[in-house]
Amino acid sequence: MDAVHPVDRAIVDAWAAGLTGPVLDAGCGPGHWTAHLARRGLDIRGVDRAPRFVEHARKAHPGIRFDVGTIDELEVADDGLDGILSWFSTIHHAPDAVSKPLREFARTIRPGGELLLGFFVGEVLEPFDHAVTRAWRWPIDDLSREVDAAGFDVVETHTRATRGARPVGTLVAERRA
Amino acid sequence: MDAVHPVDRAIVDAWAAGLTGPVLDAGCGPGHWTAHLARRGLDIRGVDRAPRFVEHARKAHPGIRFDVGTIDELEVADDGLDGILSWFSTIHHAPDAVSKPLREFARTIRPGGELLLGFFVGEVLEPFDHAVTRAWRWPIDDLSREVDAAGFDVVETHTRATRGARPVGTLVAERRA
Repeated sequence: MDAVHPVDRAIVDAWAAGLTGPVLDAGCGPGHWTAHLARRGLDIRGVDRAPRFVEHARKAHPGIRFDVGTIDELEVADDGLDGILSWFSTIHHAPDAVSKPLREFARTIRPGGELLLGFFVGEVLEPFDHAVTRAWRWPIDDLSREVDAAGFDVVETHTRATRGARPVGTLVAERRA
Repeated sequence: MDAVHPVDRAIVDAWAAGLTGPVLDAGCGPGHWTAHLARRGLDIRGVDRAPRFVEHARKAHPGIRFDVGTIDELEVADDGLDGILSWFSTIHHAPDAVSKPLREFARTIRPGGELLLGFFVGEVLEPFDHAVTRAWRWPIDDLSREVDAAGFDVVETHTRATRGARPVGTLVAERRA
């Protein structure tokens, strides 16, 4: 968590402070956010499609449950969650595929529950090379429309542009009844 | 400070954490940010053009110096400050007048020192009615250009759009040598 920008952390913490029930870190990577939020008292577990990340997360944070799985199809009951953290876990989904995880988030978050998305933000929707594969940067309005269409009301958006780094967007959305 | 959005606070706190020398809260209003940053160990004082605000600030925060004055003309020596917080204090300056306080900030902040601006953000530069008088909302890029022209390098920008509230922008800029 030392590498996390303090403002990103404040955004996630402010979101988490409003949650009570079970939360999923969807696309948790090595589990640093999962562990951070568990330390803050949240009932949270992580899922990631990369077995190596899950293995690392389990070793690093033995008290927390981590599973291998895809965010396109969560092994969670309808309305089973109070919230989902999706921190840069939808960035590799092409524009015509991003509705899949977003609808899955809407299926599994109870009405009134909250989604937090972190993503690369840009003035135009376009792909770029990121790590081993292609990622997409989204204008806030475009991604907000996708989130709305999946069954959420967008309640807050943030952007952060730090010199020498890719601009970051975050979006908090509430599951519609 | 209870009414302050936790993310705005995190932005200001992250900025303040990098400062050591004297800091000015330029357009401090009732002095809540001045006092908050003083509590965090900053050598800070406040200035506001409204005597009633200054009177209130002095009473509420007796350990801190507050003066009546305009941000267009600061009673501070050249390079006399490590940083300036301008939290919504330039919002009433028309586009052709905002360079005045920005240049004054550049005159009084030492090279390498940092300015933090908070303001209303919008997609187009336009005025709107705010409290008793007209205020302006700025596109991030337009205000960044003004700040750059005054003698700063913009190092970080943020936007926050919360449902039911006016979008807020913040901008951190470093005084050029």
